[in-house]
Amino acid sequence: MDAAEFRRRGKEMVDLIADYLENIEQRPVYPDVEPGYLRSLIPEEAPEEPETYEDVVKDIERVIMPGVTHWHSPYFYAYFPTANSFPAMLADMLSGAIGCIGFSWAASPACTELETVMMDWLGKMLKLPEDFIAGTHGQGGGVIQGTASEATLVALLAARSRAVRMILASDPQRPETGITSKLVAYSSDQAHCSVERAGMIAGVRMKKIPTEQSDKYAVQGETLRRMIQEDKAAGLIPFYFCATLGTTPSCAFDHITELGPICNAEKIWMHIDAAYAGSSFICPEFRPLLNGIEFADSFNFNPHKWLLVNFDCSTMWVRKRSDLIGAFKMDPLYLKHDHQESGLVTDYRHWQIPLGRRFRSLKMWFVFRMYGLKGLQDYIRKHVELAKEFESLVRADQRFEISADVVLGLVCFRLKGSNEVNETLLKRINNGRKIHLVPCQLSGQFVLRFAVCARTTESRHIREAWRLITQLAEEVMQELPH
Amino acid sequence: MDAAEFRRRGKEMVDLIADYLENIEQRPVYPDVEPGYLRSLIPEEAPEEPETYEDVVKDIERVIMPGVTHWHSPYFYAYFPTANSFPAMLADMLSGAIGCIGFSWAASPACTELETVMMDWLGKMLKLPEDFIAGTHGQGGGVIQGTASEATLVALLAARSRAVRMILASDPQRPETGITSKLVAYSSDQAHCSVERAGMIAGVRMKKIPTEQSDKYAVQGETLRRMIQEDKAAGLIPFYFCATLGTTPSCAFDHITELGPICNAEKIWMHIDAAYAGSSFICPEFRPLLNGIEFADSFNFNPHKWLLVNFDCSTMWVRKRSDLIGAFKMDPLYLKHDHQESGLVTDYRHWQIPLGRRFRSLKMWFVFRMYGLKGLQDYIRKHVELAKEFESLVRADQRFEISADVVLGLVCFRLKGSNEVNETLLKRINNGRKIHLVPCQLSGQFVLRFAVCARTTESRHIREAWRLITQLAEEVMQELPH
Repeated sequence: MDAAEFRRRGKEMVDLIADYLENIEQRPVYPDVEPGYLRSLIPEEAPEEPETYEDVVKDIERVIMPGVTHWHSPYFYAYFPTANSFPAMLADMLSGAIGCIGFSWAASPACTELETVMMDWLGKMLKLPEDFIAGTHGQGGGVIQGTASEATLVALLAARSRAVRMILASDPQRPETGITSKLVAYSSDQAHCSVERAGMIAGVRMKKIPTEQSDKYAVQGETLRRMIQEDKAAGLIPFYFCATLGTTPSCAFDHITELGPICNAEKIWMHIDAAYAGSSFICPEFRPLLNGIEFADSFNFNPHKWLLVNFDCSTMWVRKRSDLIGAFKMDPLYLKHDHQESGLVTDYRHWQIPLGRRFRSLKMWFVFRMYGLKGLQDYIRKHVELAKEFESLVRADQRFEISADVVLGLVCFRLKGSNEVNETLLKRINNGRKIHLVPCQLSGQFVLRFAVCARTTESRHIREAWRLITQLAEEVMQELPH
Repeated sequence: MDAAEFRRRGKEMVDLIADYLENIEQRPVYPDVEPGYLRSLIPEEAPEEPETYEDVVKDIERVIMPGVTHWHSPYFYAYFPTANSFPAMLADMLSGAIGCIGFSWAASPACTELETVMMDWLGKMLKLPEDFIAGTHGQGGGVIQGTASEATLVALLAARSRAVRMILASDPQRPETGITSKLVAYSSDQAHCSVERAGMIAGVRMKKIPTEQSDKYAVQGETLRRMIQEDKAAGLIPFYFCATLGTTPSCAFDHITELGPICNAEKIWMHIDAAYAGSSFICPEFRPLLNGIEFADSFNFNPHKWLLVNFDCSTMWVRKRSDLIGAFKMDPLYLKHDHQESGLVTDYRHWQIPLGRRFRSLKMWFVFRMYGLKGLQDYIRKHVELAKEFESLVRADQRFEISADVVLGLVCFRLKGSNEVNETLLKRINNGRKIHLVPCQLSGQFVLRFAVCARTTESRHIREAWRLITQLAEEVMQELPH
């Protein structure tokens, strides 16, 4: 395919995309396929000779679409949202064409520099403490990671490296493996599974801090303090705490204003994972949820969830970039460049797990400019309002109960009654393929999660979803003993 | 921006991209900017109110392009290639629009299933042993990672987990930290820096195996065997060897037919990193370079380098998927789904570091079909021929020498003489901004790397590059004592 054909096919693809997104709600949101469905639809081997573009494009509807879970359907209420906006898609097209690999400043200065400035823009939108802003002289700054899982891991590795350095500074003879085997990290029992996984990857002990329904599933200062004391008495070395703002099961918020000072006093690295909730902090009314950030060493959230920047774009800030870089720095000759010792230069490869990186900040730049701060705030507020609307519908129905405070765009609810009846209800909902939800477990209860996800979700979709849920609930309650 | 405006702007962007790529060679390949150049060109904060698309798009030339290193210019000869093709860009547009996050089968069955089948297609193109093909009953299979660095790390973590399990099986009382502190991994001293970094991340000892110029910078079986024996005698536990096929400095190939049996006998996980060279193995004449793959536990290369699939697409195969999954598996309720225990289903989140993942196999599907195997083979062969052409030009000039065998698309060369004269020459070349190269170090010598990179590179670009290099060499030699 040459550039002339690309001009034609690219324009056709733009129309195909616009058609897909304009008509998405007519498709069943959850696919009706069995595992292995796709293999039999296509050849077993790649073709020897080129096929035509027509051959390929007609297979999109035949092969791909029947197996797609439509995350951008206004009837998709599962997991958490993933962003999808036209400005982000345009920026991503440009990023693909430039196709630079921004592992160092020299590998494409614009890629690195736009990222640093966009991270400052976003940091200012969130009113992050000055320490996290790179500016021209800052010691902190931001980086785009692929996912929150990577940010959690990168922070943990930086914390591990800092802890080992601190201990070796006072006790240079101590063997390093003897130190890491004593390290202990903490996170909420509500934290995302990727936090526990980060501990496995880094080879350090990770303890879950118990939370209570009565505390709204938030980690309390007193609990952390007690665990630290017990662990220190047992000869362990507490070094990392991952706080969550907006947990995956119920969107709970750890008490970071209490937890932060404890971490600071104990020289424990506090990382804050606000993967979903973070986007809301651009609204003054939700910014108090981030209070306590001033005690954190690092902070992360996913604009690719709720800030209209297509996946992947997980933004992470650190107070001291040298802590991060110190954990990773490698400089072979083929990656050295003239400017790298200037202090003004950022080589983002030292900030992340992969070496290569795409030009992702273009998406932020396009989205922030084309929506403006106000447009983004309006978007967040609308989703929260839709969640509140759903909450009211649930509360108005005596057969149902709300299982956790509705703070942002997630509503946790269930039929009053057994887990079995709720599991059956959820199965019926998803088998209907008209709307899609996933469950969570809260205090041993099977709970349905209703997350407002799509950019195009409106009140009518919420009401239609509720109509479907109540209709299926009636069926289930008639069939099962209640 | 609504769908109607996207239809218009998307088509404009398609033309902008085609224009950019059609005229790329008129731009200086390496940008003439100083660190910090971009910050002063844009506001310090995001706008409150939306801007127009015209405002944004006119800043591409004003703000971005002056700072871009043009990786797809036919005058770009630095690092290794990164892929860029029109079919891949079209597929990526579609992937962005579908915008599903394929962490589990249920999260979008098409995303997972196309990936498994595309990995089989590619595995068959490479004539991988049957063990690495998923098929419908295989125990192995493939996964798309973001980068080779991640593949190396994932393999290392799987190896660590397998080693600990094996030792605990025979000695259940042994403390796990006591095991990991004795583990030792190996790689060539020519291996990519990300291999050493993987060891740091996983918290295990990583030893570099020395190579010699006389052995063409390849790891020899005898050297590995000796190191293993010494380490075992010292109480260490060898568990992982990362072989490289096509090293970054000189495109050297470790002797895996010798090394593999040693690893197998010692129950050492052998991972093969062929990040750059791997694409060439689709050609029968280069496939012998992969002989010995039958001894490997895992294998990785980057179609996003040399197989026309835009970044990121780093393909990794494992012989036993259970080894990989076992190192990572986490199953919270919100990620469980009905089909996951069926055995037919792949949940790729257990195969990688991040949780989220884009629909990247679409790029492979479009590229393989629109080029066909023959088209891809032709593309590889053309680059190798261009490298051979450059090699002949160098060899015909008595002032220069070739520093390593030219096997694929990389030519390592230098002026006969001091490192200083070569460093000066490289600086002149890059400051001229007409062509772009990076150096490497081989046996203490400063060497220039000339990698054929762009899809549109032709013989005339190679000859023009050589003309420039010799012209600058003449200047440098007149100025510096030789």
